[in-house]
Amino acid sequence: MATTAPLLARRDLDFLLHDWLDVTSLTRRERYKEHSRETFDDALDLSERIAARHFAPHNRRNDLEEPWFDGERVHTHEEVGPALDVFAESGLLAAAMDQEAGGMGLPHTVTTACFAFFQAANIGTSAYPFLTLGNARLLCAHGSPEQIDTWVRPMLEGRFFGTMCLSEPQAGSSLADVTTRAEPQGDGTYRLFGTKMWISGGDHELAENIVHLVLARIPGGPPGVKGLSLFLVPKYLPGPDGSRGERNDVVPAGLNHKMGYRGTTNTLLGFGEGTRHRPGGKAGAVGTLVGAEHQGLACMFHMMNGARIGVGAGAMALGYTGYLKSLAYARERTQGRPPAAGGKDATAPQVPIVEHTDVRRMLLAQKAYVEGALALLLYCSRLVDEQQSAGSEEERERAGLLLDVLTPIAKSWPSQWCLEANSLAIQVLGGYGYTRDHDVEQHYRDNRLNPIHEGTHGIQGLDLLGRKVVRGGGEGLRVLGDAVGRTLERAAAAGGEAARLGASLRAAWERVVTVTARLWEPGDPTVALANSSVYLEAVGHVVVAWVWLGQFLATLSAAGPQDDPFLLGKRQAARYFFRVELPRTGPQFDLLEARETVVLDTDPDWL
Amino acid sequence: MATTAPLLARRDLDFLLHDWLDVTSLTRRERYKEHSRETFDDALDLSERIAARHFAPHNRRNDLEEPWFDGERVHTHEEVGPALDVFAESGLLAAAMDQEAGGMGLPHTVTTACFAFFQAANIGTSAYPFLTLGNARLLCAHGSPEQIDTWVRPMLEGRFFGTMCLSEPQAGSSLADVTTRAEPQGDGTYRLFGTKMWISGGDHELAENIVHLVLARIPGGPPGVKGLSLFLVPKYLPGPDGSRGERNDVVPAGLNHKMGYRGTTNTLLGFGEGTRHRPGGKAGAVGTLVGAEHQGLACMFHMMNGARIGVGAGAMALGYTGYLKSLAYARERTQGRPPAAGGKDATAPQVPIVEHTDVRRMLLAQKAYVEGALALLLYCSRLVDEQQSAGSEEERERAGLLLDVLTPIAKSWPSQWCLEANSLAIQVLGGYGYTRDHDVEQHYRDNRLNPIHEGTHGIQGLDLLGRKVVRGGGEGLRVLGDAVGRTLERAAAAGGEAARLGASLRAAWERVVTVTARLWEPGDPTVALANSSVYLEAVGHVVVAWVWLGQFLATLSAAGPQDDPFLLGKRQAARYFFRVELPRTGPQFDLLEARETVVLDTDPDWL
Repeated sequence: MATTAPLLARRDLDFLLHDWLDVTSLTRRERYKEHSRETFDDALDLSERIAARHFAPHNRRNDLEEPWFDGERVHTHEEVGPALDVFAESGLLAAAMDQEAGGMGLPHTVTTACFAFFQAANIGTSAYPFLTLGNARLLCAHGSPEQIDTWVRPMLEGRFFGTMCLSEPQAGSSLADVTTRAEPQGDGTYRLFGTKMWISGGDHELAENIVHLVLARIPGGPPGVKGLSLFLVPKYLPGPDGSRGERNDVVPAGLNHKMGYRGTTNTLLGFGEGTRHRPGGKAGAVGTLVGAEHQGLACMFHMMNGARIGVGAGAMALGYTGYLKSLAYARERTQGRPPAAGGKDATAPQVPIVEHTDVRRMLLAQKAYVEGALALLLYCSRLVDEQQSAGSEEERERAGLLLDVLTPIAKSWPSQWCLEANSLAIQVLGGYGYTRDHDVEQHYRDNRLNPIHEGTHGIQGLDLLGRKVVRGGGEGLRVLGDAVGRTLERAAAAGGEAARLGASLRAAWERVVTVTARLWEPGDPTVALANSSVYLEAVGHVVVAWVWLGQFLATLSAAGPQDDPFLLGKRQAARYFFRVELPRTGPQFDLLEARETVVLDTDPDWL
Repeated sequence: MATTAPLLARRDLDFLLHDWLDVTSLTRRERYKEHSRETFDDALDLSERIAARHFAPHNRRNDLEEPWFDGERVHTHEEVGPALDVFAESGLLAAAMDQEAGGMGLPHTVTTACFAFFQAANIGTSAYPFLTLGNARLLCAHGSPEQIDTWVRPMLEGRFFGTMCLSEPQAGSSLADVTTRAEPQGDGTYRLFGTKMWISGGDHELAENIVHLVLARIPGGPPGVKGLSLFLVPKYLPGPDGSRGERNDVVPAGLNHKMGYRGTTNTLLGFGEGTRHRPGGKAGAVGTLVGAEHQGLACMFHMMNGARIGVGAGAMALGYTGYLKSLAYARERTQGRPPAAGGKDATAPQVPIVEHTDVRRMLLAQKAYVEGALALLLYCSRLVDEQQSAGSEEERERAGLLLDVLTPIAKSWPSQWCLEANSLAIQVLGGYGYTRDHDVEQHYRDNRLNPIHEGTHGIQGLDLLGRKVVRGGGEGLRVLGDAVGRTLERAAAAGGEAARLGASLRAAWERVVTVTARLWEPGDPTVALANSSVYLEAVGHVVVAWVWLGQFLATLSAAGPQDDPFLLGKRQAARYFFRVELPRTGPQFDLLEARETVVLDTDPDWL
């Protein structure tokens, strides 16, 4: 059965960007003054067109024929390179960069929406430019003028690609145990020795060069994360006059073969381990320091925070496109008849399965998850824009604090619930959804990576409860509470159903405040942190309820007729979230309030 | 990293079979009098050995090199046939059959445990004999003496395999819309014409013959499910003197390529569509009627109910073996250090990840799911045994009613929660778990089928709420309530923690009773059935809490020291289930009690 569905719902994007977030108001700020509704629309149109024409068609083939390693080179599917060339020529990567770095400085709010089309079309292929963008942004923030000059422009032109090299085989979540070492050569360069694991885009032939950003230790530094420094280590050293020079000693030692996300090559990468590639005949991979010595993790967080929001956006895009595909299927596929349409009367015609209540349940749940996630991610992106274009230091700090506290949620919530959306999409298609003839099974496999990479779910929970909500005397939580409070005021002013939804959210938010205090009350972090995953999930649901209330309010002031099915659907999804999803947090808050220890008390020998 | 884990925990099986279910007491019944603890243990030992030696080794290869169709024949991986030969020679299939059918009549309780080893080792390969067993059991119950004589013995010898052919491309969940027709030939045979979809084991070269049980319509019968009859349609017709005769017109039209469960070939199967295979030169696939005309669905339910419990068992086995693998990994893999073991002090040694509370959370949750599911399935199997060996009609009916009401839960609960267990197993392994170097990603993909086949999750919900709990004036729910009540009495008598857990269960059970009545109160099924999936999940969790309370009580009277880590672990998992899982039902019951209509009210145009 051929079903056609758009990659994402443009109407929803327009609603969120304009009716809800009023993104055009950013153009009144100095930083975005050259932009307008038109430049935003053009970027979205262009993104949708290129994603549909050049990324979507090879999504399945990129899964079936995954990258392979011949012992020296990593080969990718033949359609990847041409698609990336089209992307590079479109100027979208440059559009996302600041003007001072040679870009067009589109707001993050808009580029997040633009890039979601590519993630929805082909998460595997789209990882290459988005990793590159994160890398380029980090260099602009922390690199030397020479580093920026040498490496950033070719990245924006799509000639060089970038990676981030953190994990090692023995140090995944525990960056304190990174052992790659960087020996200073006395000439401003370093020689690196070590092995990095899980490096997305770690090697391939898609670009003239690959710019690795590598966490490593300079001998003599402190142990743990405080001794990590960041290095720029290219696959090929710069030659004279900007030409490509000698091959550096960065060598793929093997590929990881994954359940999904197969289109993005993922490598074990050896630094300074090669015998073939020894720059100048000397051992070690040549690199230069980015930022200050022993400040590597702080620099890397610049890229990691963006990458975490990017992971959430990828999870959302996979969930969103799966929702639209299952919706299109449910409108076409006929099967059985609900009680009102003849029930067991087999002589009555079969109905499209969207007529069955349980199918609508699975569609409405998906809608609530994926539109909630999209809204959350656009909101976070707008905070990045506010931070970067703030009129005052206070405004900048405020936006930064709110972004900080929301980042673990923006990463983990879509990774959990848009994966669940993909599972529901499979279920709507039934047996067909379980076959490789339909896309939804691939989206589900692809999406299962998202709770793992860029900091697992567990790490995000520790980050939220152990760091983000408590630091600065709880300033992070207060800033979030202020933002929630402003929405509650508007809901109360709107009255009616909005006020009732607001009352539910107020009660949930009060529980967030109460249990946070209760968890930290005794000062001992052990019991608190033993509950960090439950805390992450509960707070995540409350935050998304808040985002849904914001959308509900935006429907009331949206242009056009109030009985527009789009607006009615938005409100229904908001209702669903408040009635079915938000109450899930009740038992979670109960556990937190009780400072539950059933897991903590479990002896490993009892398992 | 090489981790070794048993396929299933034999200690747990022994505990459940003997300390909890006292399965040896069955040997006091006439039907099982030739059995003993020794014959049970032997069957379990044999099963574990064959599963580990002959099924587990090719599990991954059976996934990577899935069955293929050359346009005429379906080919399976070369290791499947020899493994099935060993299985056939073991006599385990015959052991599971009644004595009167030439079997050894092992109790279902024991064979469910035995077969779980094979499902854990290789769900793809093990599907062939288990489908065959269900087929043979149906024939023994509903076939003519001649059908039994001709087809059942070769199946028990492993020479013939069986299938069940219900779905069609246009009729998956809606059997009322099956269109395959069976034209009587006046000689006691029928000629069948139609196309069946999703036929597991539908074609292959693994057996001398394949016995298809096919739902079809005899022209002139009533529409809908009341016009369905059941036919036995072999791939090869019987020849003279029991030899293999002419090829029947049952032709594979293609294979379904799935996300998982790839080792089991799944076909689109044409009946009476071939030009090459026309028995006697005449169109149509030759079949014989099983049971009475237009009673096909009732006969098929005999196999479907067993198959539904079998699906639950498969889901459980995949969840269980994934749990043990992630546990073994968590005990070996070192990473980071919890606060008590140095925290951020990177000079302290890294600890096995089982020391991290959040990893123990993921392990304890898996344990609660998979051991709960195993216990539920063994309990249901024991009901089959009680039904078959009952001393009175009343006892038989009672066991049958309880089994009926539990069947949709035994199918759906493990399919949902042991899939979640597999997701947690991946998460414990982190990036490694997402690669095909470890088994857990395959278990997750394999397990995702289980909420779909043999009646989707949605169908099970309708079955439970729309049929099982209401029929006979609510007799099904009362019988379950009686069983729960007996456990509550024992818990109250035991006092202490058992009594406290019992009080929680009593409150939850009372909500089951209340919301069931409330849902059906107004008589109109529309609102009730719009909530059937939520009902299924909530009642499922309460049932598994009950099963956990039963296990908790069994630990108190188990032989050996009370501080045995195994018993302590059982109690901790029971506690976890009561503290973390059971409270999830609160908001679900609230929705049911409110006769929620947010989904029902959703216009398809709003999606």
